[in-house]
Parts: sequence; C-alpha cells; structure tokens
Amino acid sequence: MHHSRIRFSNYKKLLKTPYEAAQLISKDDVLGVSGFIKAGDSKSVLPEIAKRALTEKLSLTVLSGASLGYNTDADLAQNGALHKRLPFQADPTLRTAINNHEILYVDQHLSYTAEMLQNISEYRIDVAIIEAVCITEEGYIVPTTSVGNSASFAQNASKIIIEVNTAMPLDFEGIHDVKLQLKQPHRAVINITKSDDRIGDPYIKIAPDKVLAVVYTDVPDCPAVIAAPDEKTAAISNHILNFLEKEVDAGRLTNSLLPLQAGIGKIANAVLSGFTKSTFENLTMYSEVLQYSTFELFDAGKLTFASASSITVTEGCLRTIIEHFNAYKDKLVLRPQNISNAAEVIRRLGVIAINTAIEFDMYGNVNSTHIAGTKMMNGIGGSGDFARNAYLSIFVCPSISKNNSISHIVPMVSHTDHTEHDVDILVTEQGLADIRGLAPRERAEAIIENCVHPFYKKQLLDYFKEASLKGGQTPHILENAFSWHTHLKTFGTMKLVELVE
Amino acid sequence: MHHSRIRFSNYKKLLKTPYEAAQLISKDDVLGVSGFIKAGDSKSVLPEIAKRALTEKLSLTVLSGASLGYNTDADLAQNGALHKRLPFQADPTLRTAINNHEILYVDQHLSYTAEMLQNISEYRIDVAIIEAVCITEEGYIVPTTSVGNSASFAQNASKIIIEVNTAMPLDFEGIHDVKLQLKQPHRAVINITKSDDRIGDPYIKIAPDKVLAVVYTDVPDCPAVIAAPDEKTAAISNHILNFLEKEVDAGRLTNSLLPLQAGIGKIANAVLSGFTKSTFENLTMYSEVLQYSTFELFDAGKLTFASASSITVTEGCLRTIIEHFNAYKDKLVLRPQNISNAAEVIRRLGVIAINTAIEFDMYGNVNSTHIAGTKMMNGIGGSGDFARNAYLSIFVCPSISKNNSISHIVPMVSHTDHTEHDVDILVTEQGLADIRGLAPRERAEAIIENCVHPFYKKQLLDYFKEASLKGGQTPHILENAFSWHTHLKTFGTMKLVELVE
Repeated sequence: MHHSRIRFSNYKKLLKTPYEAAQLISKDDVLGVSGFIKAGDSKSVLPEIAKRALTEKLSLTVLSGASLGYNTDADLAQNGALHKRLPFQADPTLRTAINNHEILYVDQHLSYTAEMLQNISEYRIDVAIIEAVCITEEGYIVPTTSVGNSASFAQNASKIIIEVNTAMPLDFEGIHDVKLQLKQPHRAVINITKSDDRIGDPYIKIAPDKVLAVVYTDVPDCPAVIAAPDEKTAAISNHILNFLEKEVDAGRLTNSLLPLQAGIGKIANAVLSGFTKSTFENLTMYSEVLQYSTFELFDAGKLTFASASSITVTEGCLRTIIEHFNAYKDKLVLRPQNISNAAEVIRRLGVIAINTAIEFDMYGNVNSTHIAGTKMMNGIGGSGDFARNAYLSIFVCPSISKNNSISHIVPMVSHTDHTEHDVDILVTEQGLADIRGLAPRERAEAIIENCVHPFYKKQLLDYFKEASLKGGQTPHILENAFSWHTHLKTFGTMKLVELVE
Repeated sequence: MHHSRIRFSNYKKLLKTPYEAAQLISKDDVLGVSGFIKAGDSKSVLPEIAKRALTEKLSLTVLSGASLGYNTDADLAQNGALHKRLPFQADPTLRTAINNHEILYVDQHLSYTAEMLQNISEYRIDVAIIEAVCITEEGYIVPTTSVGNSASFAQNASKIIIEVNTAMPLDFEGIHDVKLQLKQPHRAVINITKSDDRIGDPYIKIAPDKVLAVVYTDVPDCPAVIAAPDEKTAAISNHILNFLEKEVDAGRLTNSLLPLQAGIGKIANAVLSGFTKSTFENLTMYSEVLQYSTFELFDAGKLTFASASSITVTEGCLRTIIEHFNAYKDKLVLRPQNISNAAEVIRRLGVIAINTAIEFDMYGNVNSTHIAGTKMMNGIGGSGDFARNAYLSIFVCPSISKNNSISHIVPMVSHTDHTEHDVDILVTEQGLADIRGLAPRERAEAIIENCVHPFYKKQLLDYFKEASLKGGQTPHILENAFSWHTHLKTFGTMKLVELVE
C-alpha cells in the first residue's frame, strides 16, 4: 500500500530510514525545507537532524516556507543545530535563542525568499527536504498541506530528500498549482485574475537525479490551537463587518466584497469566523494560510473559493477535511508562497487584507514583529506582502493587555514594519479608524478617538497636543517618543504617573 | 497656427483666457492637476487661481502627479488657497506652511493616488486641469512632458479644463502610452514585459462634454537645476558601478544589467551620469522621471530605451530635446504614474532602483521624508513603489553633511519610510554595504564598516556594542535611540561629547 505512493521506480532504491537520510546532511549545509505555518513540514528527517546535533556540532542554515510544526524549530535550536534561520518562525525556544544571539534570524517578507534565491548566490540550497503526499510517474513531488517555498528550494538545491507522508490522503493530489517564475529579464506575467485561476502544474517538477533519498512517514500535521472568539475579538470582528457593510451601502464594494486575506492567529481567525453570520455572500479568499475559519465559511455556504499556500487547522478540523475532502477539493488551491503573496496578484484582485499588529502608533505606523523595539516575536510573515498591495489594508489588535499595563497604541512604534503609507484601517475592540486619504494629524485624531482604550486616551492626547505645539508634518517629541515603552520596562506599566493637580 | 492644436471643433466655443478659466473653480473644490516633478503642469490657469486667492478666501484640495514647476505651489500656499495637498511636493514655501500646520499634506506613494480615487469617494475630483500639447479629432488630450495622474483625474473629474501649451512641440504626440486600470474585481494584467512595451493609447480619452474651458499658454516647463557631480556624488556613483560590475562577473547580471530607475535630485542624477563612462551597454530605464542624465546616456549610446512618467530636465537640455526630438522619439515612452510605478511591472522587469535617503540606520531602515522625525522635506514620492519591488533596492546619501555636524547614518531613523525588509544596498561616498540576506546584527556590522564617516564610526559602534549587551534581534537602547537627533537640536551637532579618558 505504501508503495502506491511512489510511482517512479528509480526512487525505490533510494528508500532510507529517517535516521539514514539525516546522515546525508553535511554539518554546515544550507537546507531548504517544506512547511508553512505547521503545514506540510518534514516530520521525520528534520527531527532526526535535530537529534544528530545532540552528539555532533551542526551549524545549519535552514530556510523554510514559514514556521514549522511540533517542536522541530525548538529542537533544532535547543540542540545547537542552527547557525541561521529564515524567513519566519513562531517558536518560543527558537525565539529565545534568536534574541540571545545564539542564532541569526533573517525576518523576510514571505514572498521574498524565492526572489532572494535568484538574486544572490550565498543562499544556494545544499539539500531540500520536502514532504510529499506521493511521487508521480515522472518522479515529481505532489506536496501535502502546503506548497510554501518547496518548488523554489527543489529547483535551487543540489540534492533533494523526499518525505512521503502516508497520513495525508492521496485525495490531496490535484489541489496544488505550482508555477516557478523565471529570473528577470525573462519573467512573464502571473496570469491570475481570479482566486480560482490555475496557471501551473499539480506537482513540483524536479530533476530526479538530484534525489538523494526517499523516506516514509505517517504523522499528520501538528494541529493548530485556536482559542475561541472572546468578547474582544468579537468586537473587532463586528467593527470590521459594520465598516464593510457601509462600504457596500456606499456602492464601493459589492455584497461579495473582494477576495479576503487573514493573517494567522486568534484575532484574524475570529474576524473571519464573524463572516459566517454576516450578510455577505459568495465570498472568496486569496490568502496565505487557510485556518479553521475558512472551513467554517465553506460549511456555512458563505465562501465559494479559497486560494492560499497552506492549510493549517485544528486536529478535529484536519480530520474532517481528510474524511470529507470531496466537499472541499474543488474549492481550494494551494500555490507557492511567492504566488499566493505576489504583489501583482494582490493588487490586481483587490484583496481585503486583515493582519494582526503587535502595536501601532497614532500616525498609523505598525509594528508586527518586535517587543519593545528589540526582541523578535515571530516575524513579518506575509503581512507586508498583503498590506502594501491590498485594496484595503486592515490591522487589528486589542487596545490594551496585561491588566491594562500595556497600551497597544503608542506615540511612536518601537519598530516599523508597515509605514503610514500602507495602512488604511486600524481596529481594536474599542472601534475602527478609517485613515484612508488622511494627513498625519487627521489620522492621529481618528486613531485616538476610535481605537485607544479610555485608560490611555488622555495620555496619548496629551502627547499629541504637546508634540503639535512644535509643529511639523508628523508632530513628535523625540525625547519622549518611547517613554511609554521605557516606563513599562522600569515601572511595569505604560501608564505614566500623573501629578496631583 | 494656434488652432491646429485643437482638432475638435466643439471646443472652439470653450476658449477662455486663463483668468476666465480660473473663475470657474469653486472655493472649496478638489482639483486634480497635471504635472509631475515640474513637467507638464498648468502654467496659466493654476497660477491664476493662486492669484484669485489674494482677494478671495479659497480652501482647495489640490492633487497632482507630483511636484509642480515655477512658484505655483509656493503661490498657492502663500496666498492661502490650499486646504490640503497631495501626493507630493518639493517647494520650500509650501513645505513651511505644511510644517506650520497651515496646510494638510498627504504624503503618498506616487502609484497610490489613482488607487485611492477608486477606493474612497472623499477625493472625488471637481475639476481636472490638464496641460496638452494638442487635442485630437475626438476631443482627447495629448499630454506634454508628463502623464502623471492626468488620465485618472480626467476620468474621475466632473469637469475638465485643458491648457494647450504651444511652447511644447507637436512632435511630442505619440510618445505617451495611456492605459487606465479598471476597479477590482475587473482589473486586468498590466501586460508590460519589457520597458518599451506599449499597452494603451497615445492620448487621454475623455468625455468631451465634461470640458469646461480650453486655454492657450506658451510657457515651457520650469527647468530643473542640476548641480554638477562633485567628489562625493562621483564616489557614490563609482561604488555602485563597481558593485554592479562584480554582479556581472558573478554571472548574476548581464552587461546590459536590468532596467534602471533613479530618483530625482543631484545624487541620483550623478549616479546615472556615471554610467556613461561604464563598461555596460544597451541599458534600459523603467523609471518615473527622466532627468538630464538620461539624455547623456542616450547621447553616449549607452541607453536603448527609457520608460517613465515625465521628462524633467535643464533649460538647455529641454531646448536640445525639442530641437532634435526625432533622435529620441522612438526611444521614449511616458506612462501614467500608476503604470510607471506599478509593483507588478517593477518586480517583473527586475528594476535596479536607486533612490536618495535623508538618513538610514545601522539596521537598514530608511528615512526619505522627515527632518528630525517631524518636519516634512518633500515626500516619499515613488521611492517606495520601486524599492520594495525592485530586483535591487539601492539607497544613497552622503555619510555626513553641514560641516560634520550631521551623520546621515544613525542608530535609529527618526521616521521610517522603507523598512529593513525592503533595502538591499546602502551607499555613501565612504563605501557600499550589501545587506541582502543578512540578519540585523550582520547588517549593522556591514553598514558601520562600509558607509559611516570615520568621524562617527566609533560613536555608532559604541551604541551598537552597548545595545547588543542587552540582546534582542535588533539591539537598541530605546532611551538613547534618538539621542543623536536631540543632541543635534541642543548642541548643533550629532557628535556626542566624549569624556576625557
């Protein structure tokens, strides 16, 4: 039964155990591995490589699609296997090692890694490790729940290890649409004008003589844990739905809106879930990750088609998808991340992009990556790819957290990932600020009025007023621009001491 | 002779003087005016509107392609005619009024204004004022030295005033390629795969019944003043040429490179001039403004084709172009700025983008717009459109200025226009830092080593080392991140006082 997964007989002699395959890596190799937000990653070879590092000094550079599942990133980091990691991670152990300067981390737009591989030679991939649902008669790879950068890695790599995952159903064959882009000046149009357009092959074409080893595994994807919507996320969702309804009423959007994108995590998932009870119909998605909420929308009959680079869902949801895959198969496509996140397509389709901020400032600049300007959280992911090219660029976050000690709206963001030029709508549970076409001081008024928690509203208004006395297109008091952040570090709260009046 | 410029007889009865046309504007109108970096702007009607404001309260919102010529922006500002201005300006008087909070300014990506007009209704154009070299038999507008946003303004506007400029030769007819983009979800591919591809019409199609007035003028474009290359700009140019030669040697680029873009101003112009003496051949440009250096490259036989949205040159150069237009006509195309600056085309063609920074920081973030984080200089212009989508995103500036009192490389930029995720190469007269694929701390080492002036090198290294002691992906001391800027304000220099050891 296993062997029906490998239809290219030349690979049969390359069958190895994960342990054996892991020995084929050299200690300072550059690896390109499949996996995009826990979906479709290597479940056996990469963990075996992490184990190898327990007894042997490894110094690997690991490129992936995005974050990996289970504890793979943690084990690689903890066992000292990593020299450098890119373009995204979301693991607490790895994050700590990055912030402790034990591992170098390059935080990249998810669309950009494939470009970099064509643009500079330093990241020449030594070995690509790619999960497959099966291998075609020609020796090509049919991916599982993500495409990510796998096609670019396979093309760029000297050698390839394929991990055939029998826990994923063969039904997945056909949902992928893989197209490589040629290096400039030979690059063609990406001919996608609707979410469901297909432009490539349902497999990753590779040169079979690059294949070093084929390994079997039967571990399903590491499940996503999605917190249920709560009062705050429901409020954020409602603000967005109300805003979009008004856009429809004003004739600027139709009742099926434009293709939706939602970032990963609890808030974005909750916002999308909210659409199940909305008045909108025949929605589509052109996104990077399909979360639990995507399947809620399918089941509610609200969503007609979803394009992305991965499916990252809860354990129960993945079981349902596998059992009832025919109900979804024609409504899905998984693409390479430089296509799912292509500026060209996002702008052409007019995507409505909903992403999560760590903090934003009163002028509309957004920090998606750094705590207090220095410590990496996860990474920019695809938020920049979408925000800057979207029809509507929406950022969401709670107004406060940690028992009111943190305001997520600050005078100046401590790190800028999305500039004032690229943000249209900001939403907290307090309300929504539509800053399209506004000058900075108009934006500040809208943001302070609509998004800031009452506990911090006067404090931010005071800063804005004092800064405005000095003039300038974007009033600031540079001496105090980060005083909220430094106050938090010293006193455990961003709430400044108020003098008794 | 004048009348051969107007081939649509219905307009003859609409002929008015500039004064009469200026009276057709209502006092709080939203105007969409032609003009892109001094090229192809209104030479008579808009100045007459500025005059009207001397005796009458006007509160206009003025959208343009980019900055205007002569003193039009200054006069509009000084006479109190402006409520709001967008998406770009470069005038000292207007800049002062903006920074003094007399006028609102929306600093936008130059590609974005046309999108905004489709996306929100607030900026509905009341009257478009567009310079023409002539009017076709159908009543359509043939622009002069820029296309800018004129087609979008004409489409969006309720009424149109056309200014026929007889100082510009009829030979210009044919160099424009005008294509409007439909609103999503009906938008098509921008089918440009080479700089010289044409996809539209050589005129701006309008509905003739929208035309309010037609006016004659005979004033050439306000000339650009370009300082000659000096030692610093020559050094910057040489660093870039050497870098590109190495890329060719490494086989990553061919000897004709990829299409060039250069921002406006002295440094970018000098960098391009440097290519005349380079070993590169058969160069092309896919840019927004063609400056003096473009024509130097044509004359040197180095450049085969140039695409942009405007021609902004010196007085002598414009005279030469007009006199010898046949030598250039087939080598040029002028496009709407949302096509010249389209993410889609810039990425597909693989543009090499060279733009000027006001300052950049040791991690590669770039400030293009604000002095000391608050005061607007000009605006982001097209630098973001190009930098983020380029094959190579290069930013240039001198390492120091004002008698060593200012270092243009700082610990943290006081305003972020281009994030660490979007910058590949940084160049000062000191040297070039190639930060492609580097983690932030690697970037800091490359930038401090290669770009910083010796006068500030130890000071920046000290900040970096001290910040690094605290860890973090992007080490900073938030309390001191802007200390160089505040020190400059207080003591007139960024050079911190050193304790006697």
